[in-house]
Amino acid sequence: MEKTISTAVIRRLPRYYRYLESLLDSGINRISSKALAKRMNLTASQIRQDLNNFGCFGQQGYGYNVELLYNEIRKILGLDKTYNMIIVGAGNIGQALLNYINYQKRGYNFVGVFDKNPKLIGLNIRGIEISDIDTLDDFLKKTKVDIAVLTLPGNNAEEIIETIIENGVKGIWNFSHMSINPPDDVVIENVHLTDSLMTLTYKLTD
Amino acid sequence: MEKTISTAVIRRLPRYYRYLESLLDSGINRISSKALAKRMNLTASQIRQDLNNFGCFGQQGYGYNVELLYNEIRKILGLDKTYNMIIVGAGNIGQALLNYINYQKRGYNFVGVFDKNPKLIGLNIRGIEISDIDTLDDFLKKTKVDIAVLTLPGNNAEEIIETIIENGVKGIWNFSHMSINPPDDVVIENVHLTDSLMTLTYKLTD
Repeated sequence: MEKTISTAVIRRLPRYYRYLESLLDSGINRISSKALAKRMNLTASQIRQDLNNFGCFGQQGYGYNVELLYNEIRKILGLDKTYNMIIVGAGNIGQALLNYINYQKRGYNFVGVFDKNPKLIGLNIRGIEISDIDTLDDFLKKTKVDIAVLTLPGNNAEEIIETIIENGVKGIWNFSHMSINPPDDVVIENVHLTDSLMTLTYKLTD
Repeated sequence: MEKTISTAVIRRLPRYYRYLESLLDSGINRISSKALAKRMNLTASQIRQDLNNFGCFGQQGYGYNVELLYNEIRKILGLDKTYNMIIVGAGNIGQALLNYINYQKRGYNFVGVFDKNPKLIGLNIRGIEISDIDTLDDFLKKTKVDIAVLTLPGNNAEEIIETIIENGVKGIWNFSHMSINPPDDVVIENVHLTDSLMTLTYKLTD
């Protein structure tokens, strides 16, 4: 992949993917950039520019072949592979994500859920038993994990993040309040729910 | 409020708020921009610039008064007020948010939860009964709601969004896949979880 594609374009790719998927589900095989633009609240020229970035060119008078484009974006997003995932923090958000992502059926395999709360350890959520956080290091030494989902409360997860990174996990989906400074070969995607809600109230006040 | 403050600064405000809150909880009454910078992975000059935007100036040789700064940012974020909220879509994510936000104790009051699933309607989650989505319009006509949290699956929520906006709800926290084009006086904050996860796998593949 070229490294020069802008973050804004990359952020739009999952939306293209979702829209193309719903088109396929509806049996629609081709679509013009204009029609796609209307569905996605973008302009037709923005769509053409975005997709040209990835070598996807619509044909004059025909538009885009939905399935080809879908498969191409699927590949670009890395969704043609499978990912082993763990959840660290089995509270409300952790449990909801486990249920939610399992429904997505996109190649994300949950292989472990960890918590330090004795009331949760041993419970079974959707076929996965919640393990003691103290066993995380051992687990990671034995099992290849691609993505760790951090859904721990508070700011005190530094040691856990170290354990995760030291054991070669390359992707972190961070819902915790930790600001993580990862090594260059580790990628982080932050979802700060309370910050998002505070931003909303800020805009309401404005 | 001035409208000229950049989105990036506004996005950092909740983090300042959270850090200052944890300082207060630890009994720390003053902090230098340098120390705050270190905690937040920013530079001291960035911190001074950010806070100057809001008329918060640290004192030479003293730094910032934590409580004053905390209260100021609290006001800027609109967290000195209370907000009536509803959740539309009582699935995994909706229920998790209800539990999660309730713990935050920041003036967010849940006044209603709605779903169309007969298996969920009538159930009680943390003191709130899940209501039939068909009663949403009536409910909004009787109850002032500031923020609607959309946690519906799929793309077919247009009618519900119309109902919400027509009844004067000014804030939408959107977890659904809907791309919403709101009127000027309605603010939207999007959290697209699957898109975030796909962005992570994209970066892992890159």
